[in-house]
This record gives sequence, C-alpha cells and structure tokens, in this order.
Amino acid sequence: MDTNRMMSLASLIKARDSGKAKPELMVALCRDAIARNDDRIRAFTHLAPPSAVPGDGPLAGVAIGVKDIFDSFDQPTTFGSIAYEGFQPLVDAAIVELARRRGASIIGKTATTEFAFFSPAPTVNPRNPAHTPGGSSSGSAAAVAAGMIPAAIGTQTGGSVVRPAAFCGVTGYKPSFRLLPTTGMKHFSPSLDTVGLFAAGVEDVALLAALLTGRDLAVPGEFPGFDPANIRVGLYRCAQLETADPAMRSALERAADLAADAGFDVGEIGEPEALARARDAHKTIQDHEAGLACGPDLARYREQMSQVLVRTIEAGQAIAPSDYDAARRRAKHGRNATSALFREVDILLTPSAPGAAPLGLETTGDPRFNKLWTLMGTPAINIPGFRDEAGMPLGIQAVARFGQDKTLLAVAAMLERAFRA
Amino acid sequence: MDTNRMMSLASLIKARDSGKAKPELMVALCRDAIARNDDRIRAFTHLAPPSAVPGDGPLAGVAIGVKDIFDSFDQPTTFGSIAYEGFQPLVDAAIVELARRRGASIIGKTATTEFAFFSPAPTVNPRNPAHTPGGSSSGSAAAVAAGMIPAAIGTQTGGSVVRPAAFCGVTGYKPSFRLLPTTGMKHFSPSLDTVGLFAAGVEDVALLAALLTGRDLAVPGEFPGFDPANIRVGLYRCAQLETADPAMRSALERAADLAADAGFDVGEIGEPEALARARDAHKTIQDHEAGLACGPDLARYREQMSQVLVRTIEAGQAIAPSDYDAARRRAKHGRNATSALFREVDILLTPSAPGAAPLGLETTGDPRFNKLWTLMGTPAINIPGFRDEAGMPLGIQAVARFGQDKTLLAVAAMLERAFRA
Repeated sequence: MDTNRMMSLASLIKARDSGKAKPELMVALCRDAIARNDDRIRAFTHLAPPSAVPGDGPLAGVAIGVKDIFDSFDQPTTFGSIAYEGFQPLVDAAIVELARRRGASIIGKTATTEFAFFSPAPTVNPRNPAHTPGGSSSGSAAAVAAGMIPAAIGTQTGGSVVRPAAFCGVTGYKPSFRLLPTTGMKHFSPSLDTVGLFAAGVEDVALLAALLTGRDLAVPGEFPGFDPANIRVGLYRCAQLETADPAMRSALERAADLAADAGFDVGEIGEPEALARARDAHKTIQDHEAGLACGPDLARYREQMSQVLVRTIEAGQAIAPSDYDAARRRAKHGRNATSALFREVDILLTPSAPGAAPLGLETTGDPRFNKLWTLMGTPAINIPGFRDEAGMPLGIQAVARFGQDKTLLAVAAMLERAFRA
Repeated sequence: MDTNRMMSLASLIKARDSGKAKPELMVALCRDAIARNDDRIRAFTHLAPPSAVPGDGPLAGVAIGVKDIFDSFDQPTTFGSIAYEGFQPLVDAAIVELARRRGASIIGKTATTEFAFFSPAPTVNPRNPAHTPGGSSSGSAAAVAAGMIPAAIGTQTGGSVVRPAAFCGVTGYKPSFRLLPTTGMKHFSPSLDTVGLFAAGVEDVALLAALLTGRDLAVPGEFPGFDPANIRVGLYRCAQLETADPAMRSALERAADLAADAGFDVGEIGEPEALARARDAHKTIQDHEAGLACGPDLARYREQMSQVLVRTIEAGQAIAPSDYDAARRRAKHGRNATSALFREVDILLTPSAPGAAPLGLETTGDPRFNKLWTLMGTPAINIPGFRDEAGMPLGIQAVARFGQDKTLLAVAAMLERAFRA
C-alpha cells in the first residue's frame, strides 16, 4: 500500500520556529491529509470543525489527534461505545486542555476499541489495510502512521500504546505512571491506566512530551556528554520471549547487536521470579478495578455493550477483594524486584509485541510483552525500524526505571538511528 | 442546640435482619428526619425523589448521603460550584453505583466546599450552628451528626473526612489509599484524593465499609482473640502538636491514658525527620496536580469560580515539574519512614484537628493534622468522645499502617468505648 510520508513533529516545529511554516498552514496540511486519507484508514471518529489556530505557545500549529476516551468540550466523546453516542462533556480532559494551553490544535478524536478494551475499532493498519492497527489506541497510532497528523494521544492499561505503535511502525511512548494526567479519561483500571503519546520517531515523541509538560525530555540529534559506553542495555530473557514469532526473536537479537555496535554496554538479563509472578497479577488487578470503574456503565447500558466487555466487568465484580489484595502485593514485590533489576541495567530491550500486526481486524493483538511494564509503572517505548519479510513493522520495546524517562528517550533515539541505518 | 440522636447503622442493620425494621421504613425515617431538620442544618444540596427501596442486598434500607463531587445519574451533580449548576451526569460514580448494587438508597447529595477545596458550603455544625461543620465533606458529616441519615460518603485530599467528622462529633474513616474507588469523582489531586465514609460510631463505619466492599472489616462489639496488650499505641509527638489548642492537647493525653487503662501497650513516639519533610510536600503535590486536574474548569468557567480557587489552580500551573518531582520524592521517603515507624508501633494517636470547630462559617478549619496521612496513604479515623468546655466535640485521630484497616477499626472501636465511658 502506498503510504504517505509520516509528519515529523520535530521538523515541523523547526520549520515553524525558523519562520518557514505558519501554524495555520501546519494545521491546514493535516486537515488536507486527513481529507485525502481517512476514508480508507478510518482513524478518526470525529473531526473538529475548522477554527482559529493559536499563533502562540510551544505547540502552536501542532495538530493533535486525541483517543476518544478523553473528554473534549467541543467534540463528542463516545469511548468507542454506542452507549455514549452523541455524548458531549462540559470540559476537556486534563491532557487535552494542557495540549490546548500549549497552543496545540485538537484536530479530532481518534478511534478506540470499546472502553479501550478489546472490541476492535474500524481503523485499518496504514502499512497494510488487511491487518489490525493494534489497540486500544488504534486511531492514534494509525493517524500518525498514515502521515495525517504529527502527534496523537492515547492510553495504555495493558499494551495499548506500545503495541499499536509497533504494529503501525510509529513511536509510542508510555511515560512513567502519572507523568501525564488521567483526569477526564474513561477509566478502566485506575491503577494501570496510563496516558501515552504517539509521533513518527523518538525525537518527535520526546519533543512532544517536553513541550506538553515543560519537562526536560527533549532529545535533539546530538547528545553532548552522553556516552553510550556508560549505558547498560540488557536483552530481557523473560519466559514469554520463546512465544514470540521467529522474525521478532531475530529482530530482537539484531537490535541487541546494533546497540553494541552503537557503543552501548550490551548484555543479557534474566527475568526475576518476582516479575514473572507480578505479570500474572495484572489481569486480577485490571479486572477487579474494571468491575468497580465500569460498574456504573454496566448498570445503565448493559444492552449497548459488547458481550466480551459485559463478561469482563461481571467477572471483575466477582473477584474477591482478598484475591485483588494478594495481586497488589505481588505487584508491589514486582516493583521492588524491578528497582533491583534496574541497579544492574539501565535499559531493557524486549519485543513490543509477539510479532508484526496480525492479519484481520477481528482482534487487536496480544499485550503479553507490555502489561508487566504497565503494572510496574516504568516508562516504555516502541522503537520502530525493523520489518518482517512481508514488510510489516516489527517493534522493539525499550524499558527504563521509573522516573528515568529522559534516559529512556535519549537511548531510544540513538537506537532508532542504529536500527534504521 | 437540641440535636437529634444519631442513627446507628449497626443497630438499624440488626433491626432489619431480625425483621423488626423493613427497608422501606428505614429509608422513610431518614426522609422524615431530613424534612424536619435540614432547613436549619443545610447538609443536603439535593434530595432524591421518593422511589422504590430495594428489599435485597446487604445495605437494603440504608439511606446514604453522597458528597456532591460524585457523579449520580439520577441527581444533579454540581461539585459545590455555580459553574456546574444543573449538571446531570450519564452514569454514577463507581462508589455510588457500588452502594446501590449493595441495596443502599442514595437519598441525596450532600453539600461540599467548591471543588472540595476551601470555599465553604452553607452547612452549619449540628452541635452548634454558629460553628463550621468543617470541610470539604461538610454536608456528609453534618447529616450524620444531625441524625438525618446513618451513613454518608465523602472524600479527603487534605483533611476533608477526618476534620469535619471531628468537628461534628461523628466517625469519619479515611481508608487506605484506593481501598474505595474514585472513578466518577471530581478530582482535585488524583494522587491524594481518597474516598471516605461517615457514620455515627466506629462500629457503624466499619460495618458500612464491610458491607460496601465485601471485605472483612466489620468490628462487632466483641473481639474474640483480640488482646489489646499486643497492640502498641503511640502518642505521636509531631512538631504540630504544640500548635494544637490546650483543650485538644489535654484530650490527647487523656486518650492515651484511657488507652492504657483499656489494656493497650501505650507509649510515645517522635516524628521522624523524613515525615516532617513529607508533610511540607503535600501542598506542592496537591497544587501542581490541581493545576492539571482543574485546568479544564479554569479554561471554561473562570468567571464562575471563587478567587481562592482560581488563584490556587493558577499557582499550581506555575509550579515547575522539577519541584513537583522533588516533592514526590520527599513523599516517597516519607512512605518508607512510615513503614519503618509502623514496625515500632501499630497505632498512632494524634489530634484530628487543632481544636474544636472554629466559630463562624467563613472557614472550614485547618487540615494540618490530616494532610500527612492523606499523602502517606495510611488509613486514619476520627474517634469521637471528647468535648471542650463549651460542649463542642474534640476528635482523636488514630492512624495505622497502609492496608491495616481492620486493625485500625478494631482498635478504634475499643478506644471509642473507653473514651465514652
């Protein structure tokens, strides 16, 4: 399939700041790209009517697509659910308002699976429309991949940022837990729900995070004083690794080799027992919390919800609090083990998904390589660059210690260049 | 002032289960008490129209008042703000739906300060209407104190459960962080916002928590196998203690003496340096998060918000992320120090507030004795029983280790009996 060139946020901002691109034109370009492409990609559920583009602010001229589980005061918000058709919140979600306050234009709402769970959105994968774009942030990943917008906002409760980014061949960044605010999002599992960002490449997503939050997260091309020999990169030998596709396993080995070639201190690291146990706690925590958080929806809209969602919420409500508490203790032990792990290594490399995007639109793929890191609250990122024999993207996931987002982004930017070279 | 006798949830449930009280009658009694009293107490902002009372469920017949920062699908939800007058959510908050699922009747919405911050509600203190009931859960505490309902739901971000409970002479229980779900509440500071419960006495609030959550939290009159000699109770000598009123300091000393008389292993315990520093981090964390969580309200409704709220949100938006991160690190060190503290002691005793409810309705009092424990996520409870010379309640706060809610409730129930004896 003929894919548009992706829009680089960093290049756009540079053009704007040098006077070569006016904010109004930057947003108009996106509207045009959406008009030309979204009939076949179906990444957007709603487009904002044309309005004045802010001329000021660090994100002036940046058109952002927002996953439709975030409230927006000027656009419908349906959570991917027919139950909420036509729902119009009074105020924005915090991350949406923050983006506007920085000058961004919220150009539209992007498709999500129902309640950001598993029932697919209509979006197709821009790399091959017969394949899923992944989920639940399907539209956010696809809109960036198709070159319609330079940036999008999504969420991850299991693997909903890193996995669709991998399947679509873009960068998806799940920051440390709570680095971006969740107020005004449709919660599924509040102790897991994490706001994440999509952009074409690592430098782009880091710049987006920096300009949104005012944090020192940008990783421009050169890294003065950054010596990869001081960064310990560990190929993570978790038990799941054997379940990945051969193409993905090869890509991961190749990624580690390229990291070594780029000067990083590369080794292998096994999975501590406590982390294997923590992974299994994810489902209990997620489902119990969904039983509470989505109980009100079930009570009012059961007939308008999918069977898989109804069953998951009901099963969550049947989980004994003692089982939930035990799962939280396993998660806590896992976080302690994670802290210990990151004394031995700075960056872990693992697959972003078991393989490339599965054929078909009935499922959005499997979060088995993502959910542990969501539960641990550690920052994680999909680094694009590899492809399988059919040309579909294979994503490598890098993970760092909680709070070490800057290191993660800087290393990922270097690795991305190494992977693409 | 002539105050009604408070309604005991435990007694009502016992009467219901023995067939002496029908759920319908139990709720009707509350409607009647509200009709007779709320013109002067002003605890309710909205009353649900009479409707069918569930005959089944552990909370059948229990009329619950819900702080008006929780969404309710059948009643307006205004967050104590004129900006949201007439707002009607589509679905309940998670805790509201959970209460209904257990059979409770949501009898009305209770008054809150604006956005659960400091601008007072019209509610008066049922013990003396010239005094504040405390805030921000003003209506929830006052409605229980005035004998209008047996149970109410509130929230605490600084001291908004324990303080109004103390001022009104009821039990206010702030569980371990996230024990009760926050989905569908109006957030101010998501890493602090904690759902809490009000009832007449400790046994009542423990039963409410048990029946709501299905957890083993009930503490009926007798405690087989519970030996107070094995429970180390520490009078907490924090620096703030010197700033409490003399009457409060005397009450705390007396509380410690009575605890010793009741057989507990009572001592004194100083405040670790790390906890003093953590207390100071509360404001930075709260305000920065409010800048994000309430930014959308400020963007849309600035003219309809109080000056103090506008200034707080704007100040929060001006806090540098690095200062926020430093405050979160101080909080984390504080949580480690709290864990260490609770290896030396099982229960801490501190004032619930600097003294009795201040005269006047212009302020809701000072959370200086509460906010540290909100930040630490530890369970805390106001134990009523003491009074000052004017007959106004003086509350003693008990605090336990995170997750030790059952121990806290069991000890508090014994202490309550000792205080009242």
